Amino acid sequence: MASVHPRRVRPAKQLVAAALHRGHTRPLRPLPPSPSSTGQLRGGSGGGHGAARGGGGEASTPPGTARRGAAGMPHTEYEFASRTVNSCRRFHWIPSLQRPPCGPRTNVETYEGQHSANKASEVQKRTFGSAATHNQRNPAYSELNSDDVCYFKSILGDNGVVQDEDRIAVANVDWMGKYKGASQLLLLPKSTKEVSKILSYCNTRRLAVVPQGGNTGLVGGSVPVYDEVIVSLAGMDKIISFDNVNGILTSEAGCVLENLSTFVENEGFIMPLDLGAKGSCHIGGNISTNAGGLRFIRYGSLHGNVLGLEVVLADGTILDMLTTLRKDNTGYDLKHLFIGSEGSLGVVTKVAVLTPAKLPATNVAFLSCNDYTSCQKLLLAARRNLGEILSAFEFMDHHCIDLAIRHLEGVQNPLPASQYKFYVLIETTGSDESYDKTKLEAFLLRSMEDGLVSDGVIAQDISQASNFWRIREGISEASVKVGAVYKYDLSIPVEKLYDIVEEMRCRLGDNAEVLGYGHLGDGNLHLNILSSKYDDSILTQIEPFVYEWTSAQRGSISAEHGLGLMKAEKIHYSKSTEAVQLMASIKKLLDPNSILNPYKVLPQSVL
Amino acid sequence: MASVHPRRVRPAKQLVAAALHRGHTRPLRPLPPSPSSTGQLRGGSGGGHGAARGGGGEASTPPGTARRGAAGMPHTEYEFASRTVNSCRRFHWIPSLQRPPCGPRTNVETYEGQHSANKASEVQKRTFGSAATHNQRNPAYSELNSDDVCYFKSILGDNGVVQDEDRIAVANVDWMGKYKGASQLLLLPKSTKEVSKILSYCNTRRLAVVPQGGNTGLVGGSVPVYDEVIVSLAGMDKIISFDNVNGILTSEAGCVLENLSTFVENEGFIMPLDLGAKGSCHIGGNISTNAGGLRFIRYGSLHGNVLGLEVVLADGTILDMLTTLRKDNTGYDLKHLFIGSEGSLGVVTKVAVLTPAKLPATNVAFLSCNDYTSCQKLLLAARRNLGEILSAFEFMDHHCIDLAIRHLEGVQNPLPASQYKFYVLIETTGSDESYDKTKLEAFLLRSMEDGLVSDGVIAQDISQASNFWRIREGISEASVKVGAVYKYDLSIPVEKLYDIVEEMRCRLGDNAEVLGYGHLGDGNLHLNILSSKYDDSILTQIEPFVYEWTSAQRGSISAEHGLGLMKAEKIHYSKSTEAVQLMASIKKLLDPNSILNPYKVLPQSVL
Repeated sequence: MASVHPRRVRPAKQLVAAALHRGHTRPLRPLPPSPSSTGQLRGGSGGGHGAARGGGGEASTPPGTARRGAAGMPHTEYEFASRTVNSCRRFHWIPSLQRPPCGPRTNVETYEGQHSANKASEVQKRTFGSAATHNQRNPAYSELNSDDVCYFKSILGDNGVVQDEDRIAVANVDWMGKYKGASQLLLLPKSTKEVSKILSYCNTRRLAVVPQGGNTGLVGGSVPVYDEVIVSLAGMDKIISFDNVNGILTSEAGCVLENLSTFVENEGFIMPLDLGAKGSCHIGGNISTNAGGLRFIRYGSLHGNVLGLEVVLADGTILDMLTTLRKDNTGYDLKHLFIGSEGSLGVVTKVAVLTPAKLPATNVAFLSCNDYTSCQKLLLAARRNLGEILSAFEFMDHHCIDLAIRHLEGVQNPLPASQYKFYVLIETTGSDESYDKTKLEAFLLRSMEDGLVSDGVIAQDISQASNFWRIREGISEASVKVGAVYKYDLSIPVEKLYDIVEEMRCRLGDNAEVLGYGHLGDGNLHLNILSSKYDDSILTQIEPFVYEWTSAQRGSISAEHGLGLMKAEKIHYSKSTEAVQLMASIKKLLDPNSILNPYKVLPQSVL
Repeated sequence: MASVHPRRVRPAKQLVAAALHRGHTRPLRPLPPSPSSTGQLRGGSGGGHGAARGGGGEASTPPGTARRGAAGMPHTEYEFASRTVNSCRRFHWIPSLQRPPCGPRTNVETYEGQHSANKASEVQKRTFGSAATHNQRNPAYSELNSDDVCYFKSILGDNGVVQDEDRIAVANVDWMGKYKGASQLLLLPKSTKEVSKILSYCNTRRLAVVPQGGNTGLVGGSVPVYDEVIVSLAGMDKIISFDNVNGILTSEAGCVLENLSTFVENEGFIMPLDLGAKGSCHIGGNISTNAGGLRFIRYGSLHGNVLGLEVVLADGTILDMLTTLRKDNTGYDLKHLFIGSEGSLGVVTKVAVLTPAKLPATNVAFLSCNDYTSCQKLLLAARRNLGEILSAFEFMDHHCIDLAIRHLEGVQNPLPASQYKFYVLIETTGSDESYDKTKLEAFLLRSMEDGLVSDGVIAQDISQASNFWRIREGISEASVKVGAVYKYDLSIPVEKLYDIVEEMRCRLGDNAEVLGYGHLGDGNLHLNILSSKYDDSILTQIEPFVYEWTSAQRGSISAEHGLGLMKAEKIHYSKSTEAVQLMASIKKLLDPNSILNPYKVLPQSVL
């Protein structure tokens, strides 16, 4: 696997540049063979637990949930048996099929035992990052009774009404074990009409509801807080149509992202989003949380890629906005209200998504920069010179690299010659293998001549490329091996993005190790703060400072994970009072009894 | 200018293919020199009246309004003196500085004279396409009095309160002369606070308001219907900031698109939208109408490109959503409500837009296809093979070409050898001139070998490229020279897009000439129906059939122009009852006194 050496991009010398421009006739200095990958490459034989590939998948791969639906329900309508690699140029890690030995739970306060799922419990206050919001159960909600269950059985049949404790227990807790509710009922509608009947009934009866997709969220948005009825979309997993001229996919909301991805790839297209959690997350959940993920820099936000939605409102009204048109300026574009509202305004039941054409050629380079300003300038130069083929621009400080090397088996620094302060991973995706590589090499040589890049290597095969990605992706996995980790997912204007890392480092001194990495191309910083054990005094030094600092830069305290339960009360750090007030008015307009996903997204005080 | 011949892409023969692949050593059969352009290329010495370049600019270049603000107000904060061409590869036509001799007005019923601007008049019912909606003035609105004028002068000063009849007359009528109101007052705020004070006052006084940008709309959305107070954003034309790492532009809403375009191009970026009306339209107006335009196929919708907005609500509340972040998942993304709501939910005062990096290489090919299926297949192949460099895919039937040749001076068919049924214009934009051209040529040869393309030429210089565009852009101009023209702007799934043209042709027989052309890549058809004079019986044959047919295909009766006054009552053809009802609820929530842009967007019956 590692018999081909990464191509070294050496510091700018006319001779090397000339050699490259003459068509690579001069052999470039090879690096030692890259170590064998310790993770499982997608398309391999399954098993293993490579870290989910960065980005939206940053620490979001639900262990043990790969390719299962919510509540463990199978979704066999489109079961894609073949796991063969569709293109040898794709380097994703598949989500682990087993819980990793050192998950987040080892780094937090002791989990307070399993609560019975059929007994209302308090929100479990977990302590990596913000503590969960602690609200009292809203007494305005009715409690479930046997008549309710009978009614649900009358519309869904016995199979659609789950009361089995084990199955409900799975749906009551998020994959990290951070949030745990006490629902007594899991409903599995098979159609939009059934969802409509459920919500209409719950609205009349004042039964609170939590819509659930793949339950892969990071902020407690998809599990009950108390005894809400869980409405899982796992039974609605059909692909409805695919327009293979325009690449427009229409499907039910419960389709697993990876299944859709495989389906459209067989048609020569790709999904415009890709996440570490793709083996479990549902497209409806992706849309409800406005998932970012790995393809954001290239294909942008779901607000630009979702063409149509069908949504069931709290009172059971079916809102048909399921257009497949690229352009439609007839009235207010209501679908955007439901993209990113985390199921609190309606339940997404069908989606139409624009899928870009699949391009065959991918190249990956791993580079070092001496300072953060060079990283910024390199990003600008990459945008300009790589232009249409740039598909990732990830950065890491040297603390991240050191950590990954210390804690991850088989990970080596591809640039070991000397110590650099920053590292950048650049990926290109285009339609012409050799041209794209030539272009990338020329760009990197120019960047070295301009002093932006200190050193760098270009992957020569899929193994090397996946090893480069392994470093970036492994940071999250390595972080949790230190002990306690406080994780923040921030959007900050690029020019200030690294300031918070340095300020936090000064603030915490020797008490903790501070790592900064993330999607520089999207202005999305992952700030991880590590210490040997969880310590309230450290949390006090971090919060609310990190939110206040982010707010002062007009940044976002949640770049891609949403607010859910975890940050519902913290929205004011990123949104104005007037905006929050208008959100509350819209919530009241669409869900006057507040039955949909209570206690989440918005502060209770404004509702 | 025409000394270089377009490169002919000849029907697939191994010899030609080989020649191309050997590096163009074999001279390809030249065409006769292309005729000199009759239009004024951007960057030339000004004057002339070349047709606005297609797309969003389809018939939307306001004659006589180039580079003026609403109501003729200058916007000199960023006066870009230089009109030199920034890149020799850009081929836009500048908007004409003079009204063309044969504008739409020559093809409609006689315009019923100038109405005094200070007297309430009826809506002028024009008859190209749908007649304007005819509503009675809503008596709930107050009438303007001298106290109101005194108040406005107290906050805006004398210069910000325009009562001069001539200046108001300009703002009372749209550029086509199709819609004409009778406002007595034009306000020119210079800041968001002033807009806030105006709206707060009008809301309390129940004075109806029409927000106005460049007044370049096609559906009567930006002019008063009766005596609404006109609030022009022309005085708010400052660029606030530009992040030249990420290409994020923040500006006031009254900036003229072309000024912004020039500004960001000097920084190495481009605006993500481009319109024929760019010399007059405001960015705030673009966002309020969710303008599509020429770069849609490449950069997508404004919902994906607008990062932040500042909006003043009907009651004067300033809603600050002016983030410059690419990712922000904190609560509902409210800005989308104001993108495309045509000023009926709030007045956009500031905007933050993501601008893509400017790429230097553009190539244009003009091709023929034997049938519509080939056009569709060619689109699919272009998406796959040209991939990241495809920037336009426009199609025209032969009726369009014949018309353009008949009526436009200097226009010739670049493929005169035989009669083809369909023509396609493909444009690529990338970062490497010679590579892109080689790629385009290889793609076209393959397409000919596959039988998708019958014949074709590739422009060898800017003159030839602009001549190719001239044909596409000239269709609208040529249409109005025939006599009456009924214009429809439809979104239809691509596989059915041409069916309506053929059905309409059957339906109308010899009574009219039916043309089909448009942005095939976006599923956007421009359907023009021509007859020697306006005839009610023809209109009856067209409407409501065209709307009903579009509705049956789940298409959109307004792809990119909005509903405005013209189609407010026709929204049900493209939106469900439930969706329209929810729009009405949102309108009532945000503007309970309905002071903003009354009679437009939504049917009066639901408000």
